[in-house]
Amino acid sequence: MSLESYMKEVGQKARAASRHLALASTEKKNNALYAMAEALEQARPRLKQENAKDLENGQNKGLDPAMLDRLALTDARIDGMIEGLKQVASLPDPIGEVTDMVYRPSGIHLGKMRVPLGVIGIIYESRPNVTIDAASLCLKSGNATILRGGSEAYYSNQAIAQAVQVGLEAAALPQEAVQVINTTDREAVGHLIAMPDFVDVIVPRGGKSLIERISKDARVPVIKHLDGICHVYVDDQADLDKAFNIAMNAKTRRYGVCNAMETLLVNRSVANEFLPRLADALTQKGVELVGCEATRSIIDANEATEEDWHTEYLAPKLSIKLVSDMEEAIDHINHYGSHHSDAIVSQDYSKTRTFMTAVDSSSVMVNASTAFADGFEYGLGAEIGISTDKIHARGPVGLMGLTSQKYIVLGDGHTRDN
Amino acid sequence: MSLESYMKEVGQKARAASRHLALASTEKKNNALYAMAEALEQARPRLKQENAKDLENGQNKGLDPAMLDRLALTDARIDGMIEGLKQVASLPDPIGEVTDMVYRPSGIHLGKMRVPLGVIGIIYESRPNVTIDAASLCLKSGNATILRGGSEAYYSNQAIAQAVQVGLEAAALPQEAVQVINTTDREAVGHLIAMPDFVDVIVPRGGKSLIERISKDARVPVIKHLDGICHVYVDDQADLDKAFNIAMNAKTRRYGVCNAMETLLVNRSVANEFLPRLADALTQKGVELVGCEATRSIIDANEATEEDWHTEYLAPKLSIKLVSDMEEAIDHINHYGSHHSDAIVSQDYSKTRTFMTAVDSSSVMVNASTAFADGFEYGLGAEIGISTDKIHARGPVGLMGLTSQKYIVLGDGHTRDN
Repeated sequence: MSLESYMKEVGQKARAASRHLALASTEKKNNALYAMAEALEQARPRLKQENAKDLENGQNKGLDPAMLDRLALTDARIDGMIEGLKQVASLPDPIGEVTDMVYRPSGIHLGKMRVPLGVIGIIYESRPNVTIDAASLCLKSGNATILRGGSEAYYSNQAIAQAVQVGLEAAALPQEAVQVINTTDREAVGHLIAMPDFVDVIVPRGGKSLIERISKDARVPVIKHLDGICHVYVDDQADLDKAFNIAMNAKTRRYGVCNAMETLLVNRSVANEFLPRLADALTQKGVELVGCEATRSIIDANEATEEDWHTEYLAPKLSIKLVSDMEEAIDHINHYGSHHSDAIVSQDYSKTRTFMTAVDSSSVMVNASTAFADGFEYGLGAEIGISTDKIHARGPVGLMGLTSQKYIVLGDGHTRDN
Repeated sequence: MSLESYMKEVGQKARAASRHLALASTEKKNNALYAMAEALEQARPRLKQENAKDLENGQNKGLDPAMLDRLALTDARIDGMIEGLKQVASLPDPIGEVTDMVYRPSGIHLGKMRVPLGVIGIIYESRPNVTIDAASLCLKSGNATILRGGSEAYYSNQAIAQAVQVGLEAAALPQEAVQVINTTDREAVGHLIAMPDFVDVIVPRGGKSLIERISKDARVPVIKHLDGICHVYVDDQADLDKAFNIAMNAKTRRYGVCNAMETLLVNRSVANEFLPRLADALTQKGVELVGCEATRSIIDANEATEEDWHTEYLAPKLSIKLVSDMEEAIDHINHYGSHHSDAIVSQDYSKTRTFMTAVDSSSVMVNASTAFADGFEYGLGAEIGISTDKIHARGPVGLMGLTSQKYIVLGDGHTRDN
């Protein structure tokens, strides 16, 4: 069978399974999730065996240590997958909810019913636990899933897929509810993102180049997360202790996460008081500082280039810029930022209200760290990613983001007059 | 200036204007809409003059009468545009609404704020009044708009654009809040749909081929409406009088609309009783009938081909198929339909509940005509189109569909612990 026929068959099976899943009871879906957890536990030795093959291949191919680390299925990570499945099972089922029911002058009742999106294609790199994260969230929200992992995790992903199949079978759900692409041919991705009849949305999880390539070629909608170039603006009316704590937390809690601060904007009139203390603390933590000319006249920092304002370091590095007022900060954020998460620190009521409205980001923080931008912190239970798109879902995408609403019209023989 | 530079400049100006519009007060936006209405009234002679040029060119180019009719700006249509502007002004402003505010264990308050999408590109054919419909809805929802009308309505669109500019100026809103592309070069569309930095979403309004072409090439999200292949299923438990009225209304209220029924599905056990009466009434109205073999054993109809079940006639023509049970009807609708609007007529409670859940369409009707699928009937005030997509907005898209929600996080110096 050609690759194209294979992918089309996968798509058709997924579509058929999605019709089944859309009607599956919450109990059935949860049973499948618990059975998958059980199957993973049973398969623990096999998972490690298969993972060892991937690790060995990876070493032979010369993958860098960070990538090999992400690839490894340790006992702790297997525990994490099992825990994740149970946690998704415990989340409320979003499907079937009917809201906004109104009685229209024509005599019909009109409402909205929450429904699955249908078939979701997930394209991801290295970390094999994404197989379980993605499959569980899609299943709970009534969607069929087509998973395409990276070739470097081929054996691990196939082993996890077997456990998923055991779970589906135990709950009498169709095997095709979760399909893992069984080829490492890169063209499979090209087919997957160009089958609008069979795939309703694509969620790419991986590096920026993967996501950009997919967005460019996709013929179906993509829920994407590009960079997290997050800002903290310290206003002249800021409580500088709060500003210190927030800036330290946003930068140093973790360096490699998308909600970390990459650029600090400081109002000129508080820079002399604020910056030296912060720079000391950051430098002690090993954070490299780059700044604008005005910043460098106050603290020790290398020169920030135009490129720096556009850069998501994901590393112990921070760019700092002084601004004359909040408007300049807002303009900088809307221009250079990635519309992910941005914060203001200020005690001025009117300014915080304006900042909240004017900053065009998926999360806007007032006197709080950008680190809060996270599905668990937001109470979504789990997230499939953080969307930097504007349509459909913005910010952390949980179960709700994998659903849609359709209109329902209830009449009793009603017809439309004109 | 090259076309590419021109389009980029249009995009940049739209982005800048969108920042302004996102903060504009409801009063200011409404003032602009009322001023546009006034300006259209003043420009009435000029509008007709410019429209006459388009009509003459159209006749010379041999446009068909239906297209020339859609192109004509009659007094009634100018009245309609003026009325439409006033009506959009009277709608509640969706922007700024904060909902779902919760207090999280971390101590932050988390909520969602409704915001504009940003910059909306509208690509449309022939009917110049779309210029006003689209501009007014986008403006009210705080979005900047780039309008690209068909070359056949060039002079009309430019004349309408002038009135729009007068309105924006009167309300002290930026001129670039609504821009009408001033070239008929077809490549302008290619640029418009491939500027993700400047355009947040594209709404194509026109024939299926236009929409398919745009969806294929777009690098930004598209809110699209393809066909309306709508079904009515008459169940064996149907009240046949209700079924008769609903089928007649869904087919014959208007033929050229997307919410008209194109295929009728009838349960075999009521077909002998139901079909002859309906066929008589439809035939009297001049509706051509095609049907499956079983249908043709009961009533006079031509043979329906496989192609018929896939076809949106937009004409006095109906395909009819007998089915053995509701499941067969649901399968037919999900397979052949366009996920627009589909109805069941049945007195059986359980069946209506299943049909409502299982039919994968943007509107599902129970004992009501598909003709209700409409922005005005749904109380949206006005619609920019009916989306057959699954993500973002499904069904009639009004002001809400041109907005998004961002998260807001309110703390008082809060940082994240782990």
